[in-house]
Amino acid sequence: MSRVSNRDRILEAGLQVVHEHGYANASVRDIVAAAGVPQGSFTNHFASKEAFGLEIIDHYLAATRDVLEKTLLDETRQPLQRLEACIDTGRDLLNADCMRRGCMLGNFTAEASAESEQMRNKLLSVFDEIEAAYAHCLRAAVQAGEVPADLDVKETAALIVQSLQGANLLAKAHRDPTPVDRFKKTLFEKILK
Amino acid sequence: MSRVSNRDRILEAGLQVVHEHGYANASVRDIVAAAGVPQGSFTNHFASKEAFGLEIIDHYLAATRDVLEKTLLDETRQPLQRLEACIDTGRDLLNADCMRRGCMLGNFTAEASAESEQMRNKLLSVFDEIEAAYAHCLRAAVQAGEVPADLDVKETAALIVQSLQGANLLAKAHRDPTPVDRFKKTLFEKILK
Repeated sequence: MSRVSNRDRILEAGLQVVHEHGYANASVRDIVAAAGVPQGSFTNHFASKEAFGLEIIDHYLAATRDVLEKTLLDETRQPLQRLEACIDTGRDLLNADCMRRGCMLGNFTAEASAESEQMRNKLLSVFDEIEAAYAHCLRAAVQAGEVPADLDVKETAALIVQSLQGANLLAKAHRDPTPVDRFKKTLFEKILK
Repeated sequence: MSRVSNRDRILEAGLQVVHEHGYANASVRDIVAAAGVPQGSFTNHFASKEAFGLEIIDHYLAATRDVLEKTLLDETRQPLQRLEACIDTGRDLLNADCMRRGCMLGNFTAEASAESEQMRNKLLSVFDEIEAAYAHCLRAAVQAGEVPADLDVKETAALIVQSLQGANLLAKAHRDPTPVDRFKKTLFEKILK
């Protein structure tokens, strides 16, 4: 039988606390309470709150990778179908609580990237990885003739990632996924034409 | 001679502290230290940190309104010139520190809109006001024949506001204004065509 370690409990429960309340708002006390472990456990397993923050970004990235693999990188589907599926899946996941928490990567960027250089570099590498998946899918769309042959794939991938972050942010304020659908419509009807 | 009150000092210095370090990260102690006033001054003038947060959003809005009036709402210039001037001015203001602090409205949305319903409603009303200024300018662009007559002015204004938020967020992570310029190029070359 597998045994969930206190470390894993802290990471899993801690990610939820941080995603819900924000990184700065989430105290170590809140995190250990949510994990149901003694307070000393946190300092046993993490050198600092920053070290913990970097690890939960990795945890969040693992879930994001799973979405990318099932959508943008799924070679069995047509490229633009994959692109639409990726945007829809991301929206539906965040919409489980009416967009209330928003994208954790965007939240971290807003509140922690100016304070911690390690955090900022971690976020940049995550955004780069997501952009690369969009670029891969757009390259396939060019090859399949689904988008113009002269589409700047790298620039368009970067535009999608940044625009979805903005859509998620306004969706969080409105508690409504309309901004994501608005961007998707513009992307398919104008930007990829 | 005009006399700066402790209340004004707290608002002015506090806005800088919050914009630089984030709302949750900025303690009342940091704010009064930056303002050079006794700690008791804060509680004399603000019922809570939330009440203070709502007021600094109003202060930030006043500066934003000034930009909107000098750009989007400046009837002496052609509409698309005004639109470009607005995006450039916003970028240059945030780029004074290499985009490091980001847009305070976006930062507040990311870290405080899920925690405070009053804050969320305040941010929504600010975003609405900014959107209305973009819509006003786009309507003028339609009338001047600078953009297609069937452009959905309200939807496009909402798209601009959300996409600039995302551009500012990625620019903050990269400490580089390229994401803003990337969106501007797409806006003028594709979305408004």
